[in-house]
Amino acid sequence: MLNGGSSSGKSGIARCLQAVLPDPWLVMAIDSLIEAMPASMQTSAAGIEFAPDGEVVIGPEFRALEAAWMEGVAAMARAGARVIVDDAFVGAAASQQRWREHLASLPALWVGVRCDSQTAASREMARGDRIPGMAAAQAEAVHDGVVYDLEVDTTHAEALDCARIIAARI
Amino acid sequence: MLNGGSSSGKSGIARCLQAVLPDPWLVMAIDSLIEAMPASMQTSAAGIEFAPDGEVVIGPEFRALEAAWMEGVAAMARAGARVIVDDAFVGAAASQQRWREHLASLPALWVGVRCDSQTAASREMARGDRIPGMAAAQAEAVHDGVVYDLEVDTTHAEALDCARIIAARI
Amino acid sequence: MLNGGSSSGKSGIARCLQAVLPDPWLVMAIDSLIEAMPASMQTSAAGIEFAPDGEVVIGPEFRALEAAWMEGVAAMARAGARVIVDDAFVGAAASQQRWREHLASLPALWVGVRCDSQTAASREMARGDRIPGMAAAQAEAVHDGVVYDLEVDTTHAEALDCARIIAARI
Amino acid sequence: MLNGGSSSGKSGIARCLQAVLPDPWLVMAIDSLIEAMPASMQTSAAGIEFAPDGEVVIGPEFRALEAAWMEGVAAMARAGARVIVDDAFVGAAASQQRWREHLASLPALWVGVRCDSQTAASREMARGDRIPGMAAAQAEAVHDGVVYDLEVDTTHAEALDCARIIAARI
Repeated sequence: MLNGGSSSGKSGIARCLQAVLPDPWLVMAIDSLIEAMPASMQTSAAGIEFAPDGEVVIGPEFRALEAAWMEGVAAMARAGARVIVDDAFVGAAASQQRWREHLASLPALWVGVRCDSQTAASREMARGDRIPGMAAAQAEAVHDGVVYDLEVDTTHAEALDCARIIAARI
Repeated sequence: MLNGGSSSGKSGIARCLQAVLPDPWLVMAIDSLIEAMPASMQTSAAGIEFAPDGEVVIGPEFRALEAAWMEGVAAMARAGARVIVDDAFVGAAASQQRWREHLASLPALWVGVRCDSQTAASREMARGDRIPGMAAAQAEAVHDGVVYDLEVDTTHAEALDCARIIAARI
Repeated sequence: MLNGGSSSGKSGIARCLQAVLPDPWLVMAIDSLIEAMPASMQTSAAGIEFAPDGEVVIGPEFRALEAAWMEGVAAMARAGARVIVDDAFVGAAASQQRWREHLASLPALWVGVRCDSQTAASREMARGDRIPGMAAAQAEAVHDGVVYDLEVDTTHAEALDCARIIAARI
Repeated sequence: MLNGGSSSGKSGIARCLQAVLPDPWLVMAIDSLIEAMPASMQTSAAGIEFAPDGEVVIGPEFRALEAAWMEGVAAMARAGARVIVDDAFVGAAASQQRWREHLASLPALWVGVRCDSQTAASREMARGDRIPGMAAAQAEAVHDGVVYDLEVDTTHAEALDCARIIAARI
């Protein structure tokens, strides 16, 4: 379970994990869930709003589909799939709690993906496909009160090196 | 449950369904599952091979992750999500049977998305992001022995019109 | 020189032209120019604004870079490249006049890519990656006063068939 | 003029340059040229071949279109556009010589974008959309005999910091 802010490098770590782990792992990413939702979900207060300043506001319709998705991801793991979740806990500790309820007795390794706020913001500029401000808004907030088994920091480490540290714990 | 060959227009129908249906629906697409798998899955006979002639060959590692994914998609529906599945039954009737087992008692509308083979091949050329030959290879094969509640044909109909026909049955 | 509204199918025709023409042709698309510009160009009245209703408003900074780009595209053709331009004449006849000045004595085949407004709007919904409303806003407007050597209509014809009609004139 | 190997971070630097430079600059990238070419260009020895080991082999048809493109990019600059070129000199010093001929008397700042080979290879794995091996194959080779006004190294520096160093020289 990878949790980190936007542009902290979670997806790169997830891809490297898939490459270094001996078995095949699925990546289930919150970004893919958002893409799987109707476009209208992003233009409604009940859905998910990406404010021009980078803030993300989540409403009840988003939460309902997200809960079903979490249940589905847990079911994939119960059915035998190895799953890397790539998420940004906009709700911080409350998001972790939601995952815990859906995962129930499934074993999970909770990994915090940290990245210095300024560095994440500069990577957000370099990649050019995210709303400016999301990286800074989430850099600290998504970790607030979240409990980890392991933390990595991409500020000065490559995704592959972080992936190797994580893989050593699996 | 949308089943059709590559470039038959399933994804466009799925997006239009999301737009015309009053409730929010998730799209779970086989293409997203493939993207969620390790890159190495596409370079191994145990995974999924896209031959230069457009044929798709599926091995046991792919099947194992796919089975877990099907179970997860079914779990999302059981947890209350409305789900549009966007799949190409490379295994035809056997693929349908696999889905039936995972869906169990969940209600499903089986929709065949047909497209004339030559037309699908020309759309494959126009989109430019698929291996040439997949459209023709799958146009008929994915429907072999599959039983539908409803069939639409995108050869002469727009995705939105097909979506409206399907929506009227939900 | 392909001119047509958003979601009229120009890019698909361009790709099919590349496939059916015996020599290699470059596609120079207005969408690629917009991507080549700074992101800030899309958040300034001096640049290019995509209004929520699908209208596109173009300012002087955009025009300046566009003029240099047109000059560059003409230079590619003068240097021997065969070039397919994929553009939407937001300025209609004035846009054509600008191209004429940059092309000067270069031979050009002016092709109007028509698509019924409602059909283009439904394809815009199906593709899901354009601001809703652009297709309808541009369907007629981009052709206003523009003079063509040839017109194709994608409402009932595939991109490949349109490409073959165009290729026969080259 | 940015020259660096695949996955060295050129595109990120280019985007950051667009953000930090006070005037609007166009990015003309070799990757966009390749996309503008017919798909068949990548399946022919006369075009451009991406070997499974990451090597890139370039043939005469590619060279011909590339020469016309270079001429066009130079014409954009002569017409007043500020242009950032994002290229990987597969021909090293010979590539630089080709650019010099097309640029003629235009002022240019030649910037080498270095990245340690292993680091570039690990970023190639993290991004997941490049043929594995390209980064390592090009990391040193593209700089062979090329003369620079300025060199930056992304191994330990962020794209934005590199962009600021470059911008200070413009």
